[in-house]
Amino acid sequence: MNRVTALKLNGEVLLRQLRELGEIGADAQAGGRTRIALSDDEKAGRDRVVAWMRELDLDVNIDRIGNVFGTLRSDTDDGTQRPLMMGSHIDTVRNAGALDGCYGVLAGLAVLRAFREAGVKPGRSITVGAFTNEEGVRYQPDMMGSLVYSGGLGVEDALNARGIDGTRLGDELARIGYAGEMEPGAIVPHEYLELHIEQGPVLEAENVRIGVVENLQGISWQRITVQGSANHAGTTPTRLRHDALWVAAAVATFLRELAVESGTTLATIGMLSVEPNVINVIPRRAVFTVDLRDPDEQRLQDAERRLADYLAEVARKEGVTIEAERLVRFEPVVFDAALLRHIEDSAERQGFSNRRMTSGAGHDAQMIARMAPAAMIFVPSRGGISHNPREHTDDDQLIDGANVLLDVVAGRVCAA
Amino acid sequence: MNRVTALKLNGEVLLRQLRELGEIGADAQAGGRTRIALSDDEKAGRDRVVAWMRELDLDVNIDRIGNVFGTLRSDTDDGTQRPLMMGSHIDTVRNAGALDGCYGVLAGLAVLRAFREAGVKPGRSITVGAFTNEEGVRYQPDMMGSLVYSGGLGVEDALNARGIDGTRLGDELARIGYAGEMEPGAIVPHEYLELHIEQGPVLEAENVRIGVVENLQGISWQRITVQGSANHAGTTPTRLRHDALWVAAAVATFLRELAVESGTTLATIGMLSVEPNVINVIPRRAVFTVDLRDPDEQRLQDAERRLADYLAEVARKEGVTIEAERLVRFEPVVFDAALLRHIEDSAERQGFSNRRMTSGAGHDAQMIARMAPAAMIFVPSRGGISHNPREHTDDDQLIDGANVLLDVVAGRVCAA
Repeated sequence: MNRVTALKLNGEVLLRQLRELGEIGADAQAGGRTRIALSDDEKAGRDRVVAWMRELDLDVNIDRIGNVFGTLRSDTDDGTQRPLMMGSHIDTVRNAGALDGCYGVLAGLAVLRAFREAGVKPGRSITVGAFTNEEGVRYQPDMMGSLVYSGGLGVEDALNARGIDGTRLGDELARIGYAGEMEPGAIVPHEYLELHIEQGPVLEAENVRIGVVENLQGISWQRITVQGSANHAGTTPTRLRHDALWVAAAVATFLRELAVESGTTLATIGMLSVEPNVINVIPRRAVFTVDLRDPDEQRLQDAERRLADYLAEVARKEGVTIEAERLVRFEPVVFDAALLRHIEDSAERQGFSNRRMTSGAGHDAQMIARMAPAAMIFVPSRGGISHNPREHTDDDQLIDGANVLLDVVAGRVCAA
Repeated sequence: MNRVTALKLNGEVLLRQLRELGEIGADAQAGGRTRIALSDDEKAGRDRVVAWMRELDLDVNIDRIGNVFGTLRSDTDDGTQRPLMMGSHIDTVRNAGALDGCYGVLAGLAVLRAFREAGVKPGRSITVGAFTNEEGVRYQPDMMGSLVYSGGLGVEDALNARGIDGTRLGDELARIGYAGEMEPGAIVPHEYLELHIEQGPVLEAENVRIGVVENLQGISWQRITVQGSANHAGTTPTRLRHDALWVAAAVATFLRELAVESGTTLATIGMLSVEPNVINVIPRRAVFTVDLRDPDEQRLQDAERRLADYLAEVARKEGVTIEAERLVRFEPVVFDAALLRHIEDSAERQGFSNRRMTSGAGHDAQMIARMAPAAMIFVPSRGGISHNPREHTDDDQLIDGANVLLDVVAGRVCAA
């Protein structure tokens, strides 16, 4: 039961809007949908969300990087009040599920709808944001809209980004009609909340209803190139080999041990290619990526240092050269302690099992945390599956998560 | 000094013919040459070798699979005498060196030239053979001409082989004018000798002049497919992963330990590919090849069994499925003990350091060993490099090897 009892979440409309948005950009056969940032299909998704904002009579603002905001004004807002902001994104990867991002935006609208339907005016303005290009499929970096919004990337640099299809982001943004005039960051949130599906298996595996996301892992991406010597697989004794692929394999087994030993660090080799890639030739060259994550910056740095030490050692022992190139590095983000307690209290009050947890994936909240107290709420993902048409959260779980969001927002913006 | 002192190897002609044959099919820039079996350039190479056979007044025979034989008849040969045969091949890989195969054929001609120049008639006929398609670049399997010759593959099956360019081998053989009439295997060797560059680093590393090749490794090729589950690199705890690439890496490290422990088994993963091959996705699928070799059939089977056991164990532990598909399997070949002693004695007599060794690569001799006592002689390969324009053996080493061949042949065909 919500503290402000007049506020009732309309779960039916939330689920219907999730379905309707999920039909925009639907893939012909695969059961998924594709709304790559600033494509025609994503424009159609934006148009729909803006229409729903206008139905709720929100003030709609669009900034220069295309972030869309809908604000329900408090009576005391003279235009300078910092609103409580909820947000996420509506762009998708290729052949995506219907929930990643969209759930956070549409649940935000559901919260504002509860205020509208109850005829309750909040004591502080409330804004729902849909950030541009969170997925980073077409334009790099990902989480771009929130990164620009929080001042981490200049808006001109972002507008000049070139897509994998050769297009300029700013041109595409203008083409679809979402090059707004507001300066990014102009609406400074008082606090920020993001509701999201977990995209991991923890809540489901532990049968927990609500994830109280206390931090977001730091991410370290490197590309490692091992240069050995190609030689005949039948004539080269083991001791005389400089096998680039074997070195890559040794790094993989080292990283697994590091991850198991640490207990908090995650390590993944996602990409690997071999040259000359011939059955009876010892590989001359192996190129692979290393994805390291840890919620603690010190432990992430430890993992990076241990990897670097191991690379040096194995290069010396095997007579190969190894180059490591940094691709991405984000420090861990720690969410706001007070907001976390509010989320926890709300879940408890509504009788939802809950646990503190770490977000393994990146989210817009990590960018907005640079400019305001922020926190996230997770609901379970079946099988931990995301970025896939099989992405799924039960309807009642989706509604429970939205009720926690509504309850926390109500507690923050209404007089007790 | 050769036992039959009248016989002198003409090293100058041998080296010149190696250079001249090496210029046929020369690559424009890379310093190598390309004479893929039954191509126009390989036809030109064949024409040159046949011309050199005719210069020596040899009986030239071509069989139905295109193997070319030049025979110096003994006075006692009524056409039914089993000759001593020397042989190898003149087809090449792409961008090859000048020695692989060609050295054995042209050194055979140099031996016959020594008889001609000395006016010595052998007590037994001597044949030099150039076998079709040893490299197997265009048509599979490799060592095809000698395999057909020794009855391991039907000539019709071989003629119907389809090339990677879609051509039928028999058509190409006819097109270049080398579809002969002799039945493969019609000239049964009394004994068979093949002189070859080592294509490995052992002789050079140990500063040994002559390799007495006592056996040829068994070869076992498998394709291994690991099917795990793709999942998010940031949200999937290590214990819940089914990482196909990690399993492939674990197999690579297992194979290295197996090879080191065994001392005789060689193990190589030459090809590996990963799906979906995305930096932040745990690999769903890894496909890789395993090349296992051992001179001893029992030990090769042991290695295969240990690998199979390990695959079953790691599949169970990691919750993945693993399929192993056999691609190639050749049992080890043991060469003729008496011929090995003759080679060793000859090297000793001429003051050449020598050692017994195993051939890591496949050679025509392993096929002809099915029909006659056979052995091989190796000379050093600089850096162990072959199938590469940098393939190199010093001129004096080439001449020493040919002198050993001449001496062994002379001892086998002339009355002491």
